[in-house]
Amino acid sequence: MKTIIREVKEQGKLIGLVPTMGCLHQGHLSLLEAAREECDFTVMSIFVNPIQFGHGEDYEESPRDLERDSRLAGAYGCDVIFSPPVKEMYPPGYSTFVHVEGLTAGLCGASRPGHFRGVTTVVTKLFNLVRPGRAYFGQKDAQQALVLKKMAGDLNMNLEIVILPVVREEDGLAMSSRNSYLSPEQRKQAAVIYKSLQAAEKMILSGVIDSEEIKRAVEAVISGADLARIDYVEIVETGELQPLSVLEGQCLIAVAVKFGATRLIDNIIVEV
Amino acid sequence: MKTIIREVKEQGKLIGLVPTMGCLHQGHLSLLEAAREECDFTVMSIFVNPIQFGHGEDYEESPRDLERDSRLAGAYGCDVIFSPPVKEMYPPGYSTFVHVEGLTAGLCGASRPGHFRGVTTVVTKLFNLVRPGRAYFGQKDAQQALVLKKMAGDLNMNLEIVILPVVREEDGLAMSSRNSYLSPEQRKQAAVIYKSLQAAEKMILSGVIDSEEIKRAVEAVISGADLARIDYVEIVETGELQPLSVLEGQCLIAVAVKFGATRLIDNIIVEV
Repeated sequence: MKTIIREVKEQGKLIGLVPTMGCLHQGHLSLLEAAREECDFTVMSIFVNPIQFGHGEDYEESPRDLERDSRLAGAYGCDVIFSPPVKEMYPPGYSTFVHVEGLTAGLCGASRPGHFRGVTTVVTKLFNLVRPGRAYFGQKDAQQALVLKKMAGDLNMNLEIVILPVVREEDGLAMSSRNSYLSPEQRKQAAVIYKSLQAAEKMILSGVIDSEEIKRAVEAVISGADLARIDYVEIVETGELQPLSVLEGQCLIAVAVKFGATRLIDNIIVEV
Repeated sequence: MKTIIREVKEQGKLIGLVPTMGCLHQGHLSLLEAAREECDFTVMSIFVNPIQFGHGEDYEESPRDLERDSRLAGAYGCDVIFSPPVKEMYPPGYSTFVHVEGLTAGLCGASRPGHFRGVTTVVTKLFNLVRPGRAYFGQKDAQQALVLKKMAGDLNMNLEIVILPVVREEDGLAMSSRNSYLSPEQRKQAAVIYKSLQAAEKMILSGVIDSEEIKRAVEAVISGADLARIDYVEIVETGELQPLSVLEGQCLIAVAVKFGATRLIDNIIVEV
């Protein structure tokens, strides 16, 4: 990988990186398309990063089908797939971590301690290995997007973090590799997640700005699905991710919902 | 800085970086000489990094004479001095930190909690800003040297960390900007630090391998100076910096000694 990157850099090419954990879906492929359009050389990393999973999370079960993923990425014009072994990324004695404070405290950071430290660490490593001028991430992971932008800015990284919109199934469910874990009945009910966000958007557009009122409505919609268990429903501003009691400016409405052991997240941003 | 670096990189030049906190002495200048010899373009950063100083440490009093330092560095062939304002390096809301675990727990890390996190964070920022192919540090800060090498390896940074030998005054005292804080009597007595290390080396060469015995001898030499207060005397292996009870292989003998409020460190490596 280093040799390829050195050669590409010597040619003065702009490298686009799409970091993934594999099990590619249309969300990933939309990132790849943008990278291909905007950059001279496109790298997709496929690496299921053990250090961003907590105890009892789905690390071992993370889907891995490198052959299918490579074929798909190739069809979308990806130049190189970078899929390093775990023991090369984290050899015995590995001990360096990159951590963004503050932004990582709430939302998914509260439910998944250590998760974002794992994300920022592996992304830093990937950035150093691939040296992209642009790196592409999805808005579905809204908090991750903000955390990575903060990291890149704070550490003076030489690149642009590009965030692209959520890609959805026909019934509105945000694309995620985790959707494949759902039973048919869970999958059907999971459409409630985006419906709850649409309900919130509708309320806000009709003039409601009381955060608790909107959150109660979101929770009511989700609770209509009897297999759904709410992890969190939060309304925060998009700078520091601080909770809002009254909506103002750019507001992120973010939810995490469990169906059985499968935890799904989604969000919308509404301008008030 | 970014513009200069972009141009230099486009010319395919190898950049050498010498990170300092200013108040240059022969130790720094020996790093600069090596950088100039080995690289095409030499940058010295002069930045007194607030986040590596603890409460009650000498941050405010850190010596600053940019004019003198620039003149000296220029005379030694430095191409650019990079001396950013604190508020540009750490704007309000700054919240990203790089941390090396394990290696930073003992020695100076134990005496100065948070110190190495400050060092690894600022060095990462400087590396991203200057994008050196080689970065130069002194062996006087033995633990820092190992921590930075570990960080660069773990995070797949694209550069080589070069460590150069301690430069000493005539009486053996390791060069340090802190030496200027010493009163004439303290300065005179501070020579005892290196003498204690030489005594240890002599014992080891004569066959002593019991760590406690050597440490007692080192402490005895230092205690001969009535103004000296020992912070630590440690004998560790040079990989993980774990304490040795019996010397074997490459051994780092590291000491920290206070004269009044001034904390001085020094070390030698002995092969057993």
